[in-house]
Amino acid sequence: MTKGLKQRIIEKVSPDLEKVEIALEHHLEPNLELVKKIASHLLFSGGKRLRPLLMIHSARLCGYNNGFEIKFSIIFEYLHAATLLHDDVVDEADIRRGRKAAHTKWPAPEVVLTGDFLLARALDIAAKTREPDIISIIAKITRDMSQGEIDQLAKKGKLDLSEEEYLEVIERKTAVLIQGACKSGAILAKAGKEQEEALSQYGFHLGIAFQMADDLLDYTATAGELGKNPGADMREGKLTLPLIHTLANASPEDKEWIKGVIKAAYFNSNQFEKLKEKLYSYKGIEYTMDKAEYHVNKAKACLDGFKDNQSKQLLCLIADYSVERKV
Amino acid sequence: MTKGLKQRIIEKVSPDLEKVEIALEHHLEPNLELVKKIASHLLFSGGKRLRPLLMIHSARLCGYNNGFEIKFSIIFEYLHAATLLHDDVVDEADIRRGRKAAHTKWPAPEVVLTGDFLLARALDIAAKTREPDIISIIAKITRDMSQGEIDQLAKKGKLDLSEEEYLEVIERKTAVLIQGACKSGAILAKAGKEQEEALSQYGFHLGIAFQMADDLLDYTATAGELGKNPGADMREGKLTLPLIHTLANASPEDKEWIKGVIKAAYFNSNQFEKLKEKLYSYKGIEYTMDKAEYHVNKAKACLDGFKDNQSKQLLCLIADYSVERKV
Repeated sequence: MTKGLKQRIIEKVSPDLEKVEIALEHHLEPNLELVKKIASHLLFSGGKRLRPLLMIHSARLCGYNNGFEIKFSIIFEYLHAATLLHDDVVDEADIRRGRKAAHTKWPAPEVVLTGDFLLARALDIAAKTREPDIISIIAKITRDMSQGEIDQLAKKGKLDLSEEEYLEVIERKTAVLIQGACKSGAILAKAGKEQEEALSQYGFHLGIAFQMADDLLDYTATAGELGKNPGADMREGKLTLPLIHTLANASPEDKEWIKGVIKAAYFNSNQFEKLKEKLYSYKGIEYTMDKAEYHVNKAKACLDGFKDNQSKQLLCLIADYSVERKV
Repeated sequence: MTKGLKQRIIEKVSPDLEKVEIALEHHLEPNLELVKKIASHLLFSGGKRLRPLLMIHSARLCGYNNGFEIKFSIIFEYLHAATLLHDDVVDEADIRRGRKAAHTKWPAPEVVLTGDFLLARALDIAAKTREPDIISIIAKITRDMSQGEIDQLAKKGKLDLSEEEYLEVIERKTAVLIQGACKSGAILAKAGKEQEEALSQYGFHLGIAFQMADDLLDYTATAGELGKNPGADMREGKLTLPLIHTLANASPEDKEWIKGVIKAAYFNSNQFEKLKEKLYSYKGIEYTMDKAEYHVNKAKACLDGFKDNQSKQLLCLIADYSVERKV
């Protein structure tokens, strides 16, 4: 089933994806070799280009189809890459997209500044849309993501993190960017407020579902599938929904045991397997999956008002795929 | 003389300065206490607000005077503060504006992300100008500054840095932001291309003069005047014009001695005094002063085409002050 979904998406997006890849390289325009190296290391390490594709098809769904949507769509991949570079320094994670994180290969200052450079490139292309509302969206994304990351840092190791606090974190750190890409597509197409809001809401729910699925994969996928070791969130003291729900429902003994593992910030494979059993038996996995599916259905419902076409079908497939994917 | 100049500027700008201070605080709008603390630590530690004042008076010189210039001017102080926060992490300097640098009080990730937050605030206000050209300027500033910093990092300790390379570095790291503030004022005022270009060139030359004067002060001012220890650039392996000119003209023995001091990255006060003597005797100080004055005169000449008024007088005073200031 999942493979079928993935195949169907790939068939639909392949021609655009090639153009997106070319645009990403063409518009980078660094003056310095080092900037190019650091930026390319992350940019061309096999990203799914989800955000550009969402902007392209949001624009097309609103009738925009003059080719410029490809160029403008890379705004959101540069923005995504910029935040990943700043996050890498923040997280001190060693692996990103299956490759060594940039900051393990280059000093943190250079990585931070290359992130700034990519943000600048995103801005420069955004300015060419001549749409101040798109700039406001980028400002909101940058503001929310930076505050979201700081918030997450402040909450590291907080063992009583609530579901509500978790939702706030993932909204800022993931949903606003995906929402912004979809909304910008509508603005680029000069769609009416109703369509703009529908695509904005589609992006919001997709973003939430996408991050919940990501947080699930950190427990359910293998290292090979993930491109990094599973359980990374927990090792970093980041509590996500599967664990939050499990902690809220576990017996006092199980709760103590789980908290002990989190505090130790270390676990062997036996402990990790035992933890996963608890996540299943207290329905932390199931609950998160249900919530993710709820948001997928909300996302798809936002598209009801649009007439059926290739772009609508694709946006629905992407919503389904967001929770069924293995990577 | 200098005090007179400073006094005359302060008298002219005081009413605006108060409004700029209020706007800086009012528009910060952080959702998180920590972001507010880190941002405020730097923002409200006694900056000169040079960049906002330049935008305000560039706009007014072109006839814009409806009050919004105050709000829009803070774009350039937020942008300046954002780059200072990222630079602090990059430079690992301990003192900034006479206070502990942010990264010595808070972890580097939080400081980087607060820089991103300030950049986002700048963008959000810029979007409200509804002028895509102002966004392009901010993109150029961010791109040039990030690449300039990376370039400077790559050139740290380079003992044969040329005057040309030095000019490239200070153009990116200082001049583009000041130039952008002045040019944006003209754009806000919907001035013609000629006035826009004249103010852009004024800002460029002022920025170069300003940075040269800064680089001079690192040798000629006292710790009390600077708010940090003099000789900091040299200790960090950053060669600036006084030293570049001195090295180019020194006798082989003096050259060797100076290079030895730079490589050691350490000097006692006797050695620093001896070094200063060389900077004077080989005319490194005088040459830099002359170059700075050349750019001040170029800056003022750019204003020739504008009719005389308060804003023009102020922009001329600021140009003069940029090289006469002691801090």
